[in-house]
Amino acid sequence: MTTTVGARTMRALAKTRPEPGAELIERQVPTPGPGEVLLKMVAASICGTDYHLYSWDTWASEIVKPPVVLGHELAGVVAATGSGVTRVKEGDLVGVESHIVDWTCAQCRAGNMHNGLDPAIVALQEPMGNAVHAAFVEPIEGRSVAITGCGPIGLCSVGIARAAGASLVVATDTEPYRLQLAREMGADLALDARNPDTVRSVLDATGGDGVDAVLEMSGAGPALTQALEFVTRGGRISLLGIFPEPVSVDLSDMVIQRGIRLYGIYGRRIYDSWERTQALLRSGRFDPTPILTHRFDLADWERGFELIASRHAGKVVLIP
Amino acid sequence: MTTTVGARTMRALAKTRPEPGAELIERQVPTPGPGEVLLKMVAASICGTDYHLYSWDTWASEIVKPPVVLGHELAGVVAATGSGVTRVKEGDLVGVESHIVDWTCAQCRAGNMHNGLDPAIVALQEPMGNAVHAAFVEPIEGRSVAITGCGPIGLCSVGIARAAGASLVVATDTEPYRLQLAREMGADLALDARNPDTVRSVLDATGGDGVDAVLEMSGAGPALTQALEFVTRGGRISLLGIFPEPVSVDLSDMVIQRGIRLYGIYGRRIYDSWERTQALLRSGRFDPTPILTHRFDLADWERGFELIASRHAGKVVLIP
Amino acid sequence: MTTTVGARTMRALAKTRPEPGAELIERQVPTPGPGEVLLKMVAASICGTDYHLYSWDTWASEIVKPPVVLGHELAGVVAATGSGVTRVKEGDLVGVESHIVDWTCAQCRAGNMHNGLDPAIVALQEPMGNAVHAAFVEPIEGRSVAITGCGPIGLCSVGIARAAGASLVVATDTEPYRLQLAREMGADLALDARNPDTVRSVLDATGGDGVDAVLEMSGAGPALTQALEFVTRGGRISLLGIFPEPVSVDLSDMVIQRGIRLYGIYGRRIYDSWERTQALLRSGRFDPTPILTHRFDLADWERGFELIASRHAGKVVLIP
Amino acid sequence: MTTTVGARTMRALAKTRPEPGAELIERQVPTPGPGEVLLKMVAASICGTDYHLYSWDTWASEIVKPPVVLGHELAGVVAATGSGVTRVKEGDLVGVESHIVDWTCAQCRAGNMHNGLDPAIVALQEPMGNAVHAAFVEPIEGRSVAITGCGPIGLCSVGIARAAGASLVVATDTEPYRLQLAREMGADLALDARNPDTVRSVLDATGGDGVDAVLEMSGAGPALTQALEFVTRGGRISLLGIFPEPVSVDLSDMVIQRGIRLYGIYGRRIYDSWERTQALLRSGRFDPTPILTHRFDLADWERGFELIASRHAGKVVLIP
Repeated sequence: MTTTVGARTMRALAKTRPEPGAELIERQVPTPGPGEVLLKMVAASICGTDYHLYSWDTWASEIVKPPVVLGHELAGVVAATGSGVTRVKEGDLVGVESHIVDWTCAQCRAGNMHNGLDPAIVALQEPMGNAVHAAFVEPIEGRSVAITGCGPIGLCSVGIARAAGASLVVATDTEPYRLQLAREMGADLALDARNPDTVRSVLDATGGDGVDAVLEMSGAGPALTQALEFVTRGGRISLLGIFPEPVSVDLSDMVIQRGIRLYGIYGRRIYDSWERTQALLRSGRFDPTPILTHRFDLADWERGFELIASRHAGKVVLIP
Repeated sequence: MTTTVGARTMRALAKTRPEPGAELIERQVPTPGPGEVLLKMVAASICGTDYHLYSWDTWASEIVKPPVVLGHELAGVVAATGSGVTRVKEGDLVGVESHIVDWTCAQCRAGNMHNGLDPAIVALQEPMGNAVHAAFVEPIEGRSVAITGCGPIGLCSVGIARAAGASLVVATDTEPYRLQLAREMGADLALDARNPDTVRSVLDATGGDGVDAVLEMSGAGPALTQALEFVTRGGRISLLGIFPEPVSVDLSDMVIQRGIRLYGIYGRRIYDSWERTQALLRSGRFDPTPILTHRFDLADWERGFELIASRHAGKVVLIP
Repeated sequence: MTTTVGARTMRALAKTRPEPGAELIERQVPTPGPGEVLLKMVAASICGTDYHLYSWDTWASEIVKPPVVLGHELAGVVAATGSGVTRVKEGDLVGVESHIVDWTCAQCRAGNMHNGLDPAIVALQEPMGNAVHAAFVEPIEGRSVAITGCGPIGLCSVGIARAAGASLVVATDTEPYRLQLAREMGADLALDARNPDTVRSVLDATGGDGVDAVLEMSGAGPALTQALEFVTRGGRISLLGIFPEPVSVDLSDMVIQRGIRLYGIYGRRIYDSWERTQALLRSGRFDPTPILTHRFDLADWERGFELIASRHAGKVVLIP
Repeated sequence: MTTTVGARTMRALAKTRPEPGAELIERQVPTPGPGEVLLKMVAASICGTDYHLYSWDTWASEIVKPPVVLGHELAGVVAATGSGVTRVKEGDLVGVESHIVDWTCAQCRAGNMHNGLDPAIVALQEPMGNAVHAAFVEPIEGRSVAITGCGPIGLCSVGIARAAGASLVVATDTEPYRLQLAREMGADLALDARNPDTVRSVLDATGGDGVDAVLEMSGAGPALTQALEFVTRGGRISLLGIFPEPVSVDLSDMVIQRGIRLYGIYGRRIYDSWERTQALLRSGRFDPTPILTHRFDLADWERGFELIASRHAGKVVLIP
């Protein structure tokens, strides 16, 4: 690792100007201060947030002020540690938790347990954590579960639900490529949401009752409408996909009189759930490998963003 | 009780024609069949459903086919029992549970424990059960709670929340008469929802955080909007009031990113909760007496319906 | 089915005298009264309770007054129905729930869904229900679980835990034959409890932490001692095995200071859990077939009891 | 505060030698390092642990190596802050959390909210936290609760249970002085545990059912035996009192077949519960004042320890 610390510069994929696009730049390698850790990246996956910044849509342009370096789904090896760092040491492979809420350095706490895993899987810590949080707000063991929306978080949810003992796992999306990935992740049923029989098919698969739980990962109004129609009386819907605008909901008929519970899921982690996911990963019962559809050298980053735009990709991983 | 059974006819308040109004009629006293119980009414309170039938609004005219007898919030004394009835005996004071889901005759199970209570309170079993169900889907002990809507169920909720150890009980309504009743039921703060400072006042009362739980009892869109604004990040809203039409909800900003849980509450009972309410009633920590604002002889039923229309009543009880 | 109803007598395995043993007798075929159902048995499995009665130990001799007919783990086909029976009809295959708590005829409610299952599995409804109840008092999805005691209920628990998404399933017993069945039911690790390294092995398999949950199915003091040693700090133990006498427990060091939860599990069913097990059975994720080690004609009943005495059997099924 | 920081020495009650007793000594006032806070004590209450050290019993002599300064139930005013301290400032009144589990400085987080409370109540943070943790592992709103053992933590539990909406609060102890304090804290029933009718009285007060929850705060074998007898079928017992030796428990009859849940409660805090207690304190619904039976100048510390030995004290507070 000495040579890494000695290196003067490193590459970074950056948003340098307030317009569409990104740029590969050279940056100084920093020296870690007290309590800080210098990581040498080994894998970074492209998040939807990165894509928003790349395409510079309204949301991105309102929130972000260039220049910024892209990338927060990361696996790295500890290259140097500042004073006071005791939980990780040089050479440890760690994932990164970007929602830092206090000084406990959560990413470091979990660090050592990653050794031996594919770094691309380690980089997936954030979407896996989101999926786990959405799935586990209530037990899913022995329940029937539908996942609406098969982006990377939705696909992780399919695998988590399967590993966590769901009796039936249904996935819906409008993109056949993604539905195929859902099948590879263990969905018993992968349904094209544009098909007018979708709700009927879910009801049929559950003896007419509907599913016990829906994990809404699409942020699409029609998906929520379907979810409310095929969730069982007394069931629950976890809402994680971000809807671009307010949604009209028939609260009386579809929520209140059917005793439905709606959970707003925000990205912060519940460590207990995260530890259980680690246990499932280690045991081999949950394997996100099929989601990792593409790996490119960092220099080929633009191909990765184009693939995401085409919706013909699971997760795109960049190898520095 | 012999005389009761011997009586040939009884009075009944009935909806006889598909138009506004109601009528006091004479009916034959029935003989209880196997597993059935004949009750001699001692108190009946007017439910919102009764008022819908009386005023014959769209909802009522679509659901109900006259002739029907009004009234389902009832306290009665067992006057005769059919064969096979073992859980109650003549002379027992019982409340009635109108949502019969199986043969277990839930109303009778609870029957004996009512002896000694004011029959008007026994008649309140249904709205109290609704309030309990809405309140107890999550613990409220030590939490701050707001009740939006101070009809009889909302007023019961104020008292239940207070008795169940809420650290702060806020009530909102647009009718000062009802806010005064909320204060009598134990609200720490009773706020006119039309006041533009309402949300601000709730936030101030909770150190800026907002309340841990909202019990939505109004079915009014503006009340839900306020609830979403003054519920704390990570809090929950129980939805019981029926909204007359679909509601537009900003799911992303107000529900998902704030980690809110929405519970559709439908009227079925959780016996565990009901038994706890009985315990609170018996201990005197929950006392619905202030809600019972008016008692009339059955012959004066029309005054009761007029009072409800004026919104200057809590619960109106008719004494047969 | 007509011929069945027409039959005058039927065979029954009965405890006729207050001494060890049992006897195959002839009994009149009864006529079902109002609300009753006549079942023609197709499979009956021998329960531990039956074995207690057969061997006439202290427990049995204090509780039971002969003559009684043995057997309560039953699958049967509805042969005739009394008046008022609407939920099942002639020809339905049903399992039997012997803990009747009210008039809702729980066994019949579940009846129709058994059609198509192996009747021997239907007869297992009771031990499966026990296993489910013990397992699901807290979530087990993604948790590490140990089952101490691999009799039929313990073996069901192994399969349920595996199907319900446990990240690790450990089984312990003192009988190698049973440990082999545990492996067939999906245990990741099946350990001879007599081995002095047993606790060490469980700790090693969990990175030194111990298991999140123990399902105690043996009723053996040394098994509980091991359970308290290999359950993780903050973990839980479900107690279902009946201990023949009071047990000395180091509450302070092993329970209080380690934050352990102990759940006494009694046999009544939680229908929600039962329905989830049905769903797991239907989906094929839980398959109790390996537990059904022996099937005999009813006439050979004594061989079944001898096998149970030898502890070289899973579940013994008698076919009338 | 300048003068405080300027002071060269301060008094401290210390255990200086491995034998019974304690000693008031002079110590240098330290200078807070990075992330540290210097507190000027305003109140300190004597904990059972302090008494163990004072009397130098087996437990104390095995765990502690003199010299050590006594006292960990503390309220103090921030007198100086080290570099990097941002959450508190000079003049803030704070309580102290002695179970430090990470770097998040939990004691400081809660600091500001104490302003305005009696410092003696602030010093009670630890026993109140223990009581809350034991009480709130399951909801107690609307439940009947018994507290066995009326030392300071038990007395806090009585008040917490009362404030949190328990429908009935029973307290047991063997010391009439403490039972009187339990009544002042809101117990509906305070029973001398030596009375042979104690179990009978608790059953009578609950209509024969027994209490829904027991909070075991005594660490006395006979109290646990009574608890198992008067807890209702399906109820729960929180175990917090430390038993000096292993206890023989009839698991089969008293725990398993009655479906009882036993929770080992260890002292770590659940911040959610702690925040709810703060809310109850602020609202005035929980007021621990009656527990604070004695206040002495620090110089009179020995009288405090003698009072605790006599069991004729609630909490003894020393004012530096």
